[in-house]
Amino acid sequence: MDVQKENFSEWYNEIIKEAHLCDLRYNLKGFVVIPPNAAQVMKLMYRIYEEALERKGHRPAYFPSLIPERNLKAESEHVEGFVPEVFWVTRAGANELEEAMAMRPTSETAMYPMFALWINGKSDLPLKIYQSCQVWRHETKATKPFIRTREFYWIEAHDVFATEEEALMQVREDMETTDEILGGRFGIPFIFFKRPQWDKFAGAVDTYAADTLMPDGKTLQLPSTHMLGQNFSKAFDVKYMDEDGMHQFGWQTCYGPAISRIYAALFSMHGDNRGLVYPFELAPVQVVIIPIVKKDTEAEVRKKVEGLKEALSAHFRVEADFSNNTPGFKYNKWELLGVPIRIEMGMRDIRKGACVLARRDTGEKREVKLEGLENEVRKEGASLTSNIREKAFSWFSGLVHSADSDSGLAKAVEKGGFVRIPFCSDRMEGEPCAERLKEKYSVNIRGSRYGEKERPSGKCVGCGKPATIYLYAARQY
Amino acid sequence: MDVQKENFSEWYNEIIKEAHLCDLRYNLKGFVVIPPNAAQVMKLMYRIYEEALERKGHRPAYFPSLIPERNLKAESEHVEGFVPEVFWVTRAGANELEEAMAMRPTSETAMYPMFALWINGKSDLPLKIYQSCQVWRHETKATKPFIRTREFYWIEAHDVFATEEEALMQVREDMETTDEILGGRFGIPFIFFKRPQWDKFAGAVDTYAADTLMPDGKTLQLPSTHMLGQNFSKAFDVKYMDEDGMHQFGWQTCYGPAISRIYAALFSMHGDNRGLVYPFELAPVQVVIIPIVKKDTEAEVRKKVEGLKEALSAHFRVEADFSNNTPGFKYNKWELLGVPIRIEMGMRDIRKGACVLARRDTGEKREVKLEGLENEVRKEGASLTSNIREKAFSWFSGLVHSADSDSGLAKAVEKGGFVRIPFCSDRMEGEPCAERLKEKYSVNIRGSRYGEKERPSGKCVGCGKPATIYLYAARQY
Repeated sequence: MDVQKENFSEWYNEIIKEAHLCDLRYNLKGFVVIPPNAAQVMKLMYRIYEEALERKGHRPAYFPSLIPERNLKAESEHVEGFVPEVFWVTRAGANELEEAMAMRPTSETAMYPMFALWINGKSDLPLKIYQSCQVWRHETKATKPFIRTREFYWIEAHDVFATEEEALMQVREDMETTDEILGGRFGIPFIFFKRPQWDKFAGAVDTYAADTLMPDGKTLQLPSTHMLGQNFSKAFDVKYMDEDGMHQFGWQTCYGPAISRIYAALFSMHGDNRGLVYPFELAPVQVVIIPIVKKDTEAEVRKKVEGLKEALSAHFRVEADFSNNTPGFKYNKWELLGVPIRIEMGMRDIRKGACVLARRDTGEKREVKLEGLENEVRKEGASLTSNIREKAFSWFSGLVHSADSDSGLAKAVEKGGFVRIPFCSDRMEGEPCAERLKEKYSVNIRGSRYGEKERPSGKCVGCGKPATIYLYAARQY
Repeated sequence: MDVQKENFSEWYNEIIKEAHLCDLRYNLKGFVVIPPNAAQVMKLMYRIYEEALERKGHRPAYFPSLIPERNLKAESEHVEGFVPEVFWVTRAGANELEEAMAMRPTSETAMYPMFALWINGKSDLPLKIYQSCQVWRHETKATKPFIRTREFYWIEAHDVFATEEEALMQVREDMETTDEILGGRFGIPFIFFKRPQWDKFAGAVDTYAADTLMPDGKTLQLPSTHMLGQNFSKAFDVKYMDEDGMHQFGWQTCYGPAISRIYAALFSMHGDNRGLVYPFELAPVQVVIIPIVKKDTEAEVRKKVEGLKEALSAHFRVEADFSNNTPGFKYNKWELLGVPIRIEMGMRDIRKGACVLARRDTGEKREVKLEGLENEVRKEGASLTSNIREKAFSWFSGLVHSADSDSGLAKAVEKGGFVRIPFCSDRMEGEPCAERLKEKYSVNIRGSRYGEKERPSGKCVGCGKPATIYLYAARQY
């Protein structure tokens, strides 16, 4: 890494190449290959989310990747939103198909016709299903690895409830899941926004999304939950029989953590000028052992290092680097790859029954006894995770600004991050103001902060009419 | 389940419906929905295979689902084998694409162009990559849930070595993995065959496959490993520089456990007239607790059962059935779903500090003290797993027959299973004999048994010429 992280866009491209996170040379526009260094982390992230969803009553399922054209067109707003981006399968072998099949851009229209068959009485509710899969969208905007590609990796959870209230409680549960995993375990700060009506998911009543910031101050949407109300249940006949024998339409939500995108936020947030930095539990290699050898002690040190590797491997993902490179070269290499804990061990250490433990985040080195090393590694790993989380949260909190005028917004936007502004409305009538600000300052309106009760007394920054709500503006990916 | 397993085809359709393993009502021919009851097991199976592959040096990666037409056509035999079955994407949104894109029928042609970029020196070898994903093939044969569908779920491991010898060792390692997991942990018996030349994977030098038997005596192919030699490395320029600075083509293998198919073998092999039977580690619900209540003791029993559920949930996947159904109804329901251990608990048991433990495989019931119950469950679970494995292996071994004449083959085939016969050749010149036997007896030649050294002295059952090898015939799925 020769690049300073301050130049984020260059840093991003450089780290992807140097740490071999993504290979852009696949010969299909907008499609990329994700090599092991990134795939291993994404698999760990998948499992963490899956475990949390299952703990909260979701069960896994596999729905087809292909959706018949007529399903996709059943919910009218949904069609408008997704059809322009759909990849269509029209041929099988040498034969033209009678009906085109869509590669799923999202699975509502594959799942809900089945939900309609699965749900009869109230005892079938709530129905909480998730699927880990890819989706495909023919993005026309410029693609960016992990952030916007034509194929991406996500989990989609789809739930049906008997009442609106339960559905709204699910929205809160999804937020808690995001809080627990994204904030707590991955150390990624974010704000929950309720999107303005003009920017919600196609077919939803409301969209709630966790927006983080990238190091350049631009915002990136992470997991979102959509309150679908009864829009889809009416389109797909998802209903149950209530206590009085009457058919009622279900209330639906869906939640979609995009693993590839969250991964982008993860390494962008925590990485530094030397390369990747991972929370301890997400590092593909958690501990690397570097033997410090002289010619005459090589065999003895090697034996000791191999023994240590084996012992630690019972608890952590461990590598030992016996290559012919210099220790300095090895340090750089494994720092680039984001290994949280480095252990150096030479004859002098061995004689003392000790080793040197170095931390990736702070660079601090200290001598540690071999006895009890496992606990030290665990402790330092946990400390690293909370340290990088705190750093990220503190940086993030400095990037939430306020403005109540055009010129104030103009100035605040240049600092990067979010700007809270008084706004006329987050309903459709507010859209022209959002358009105006977008044209003038290249900012997007991300919505109202979830749970924020305060109402503005001033005027809408867009149109000067009395403001009714605080919305947040930011430049976005 | 009203159906006897002896009528296997009916049993198979019935269990899928009753236990809700697969939903055939998705409105796209050849595509099915896999609901939670089966998806949970498949996810466990995925993790077991992934863990084993990683332990043996494979690393995960994600390659695109779509393959440009020109890649797919680079290896000539491979093209012929797969192109007739490919689903083609020809449109994105409203636009016709310039080049059609194939939904991967298998990933050689997506991966190997990248391998060519990733491999430079010998230190980049061996390269061992796996990917868990779906593949799509427009099957024209009749589809059957889990066994043959147009979208299926598998893992594909793709390896590159410097030498032929290492590649052959990988074939053996893959067999060991199959042995360990399929045989050892899933309890599914099989024979390793080296396929005859006319039935190998398109583009391979040799194909080795694990064939099991279904209860009707027909064989089903499970994981196969393909020795690719240098066929693909030459087509895709996968080469490395050796010690003398010379470019050498790599030697390649690939291994493909199809999870959906193995799942079919799993529940078909172990299931019985009452429903599913799962090895302990694969059961979605490992323990179900049935409260035995009378009106006046309901609250107290419920409290005890909830406490027990919580305690056992720290170690196992546990459900408690508090529904209003009768105990008998509940027993049937959970037996149908294959729960290995059932615990019954009423006031009389509680007073004794005990419960009744019933095993799914044998139906045996016995009283067990609550103290130490965790260990009893673990022990009975392990015993169930080895019991159903033994039963399966013993049944299987009775279905491996021999014949050395036309009439002998005719008779043996009717018993179901494999028939070992003397054969002229497993090279291309043997194909007409295989065709003849197929027409006459509806049997397929599955190949030579891996590791079998004995050579026949008699005549080929197909053509009467001197036999050179024993091959195995069987009716197949």
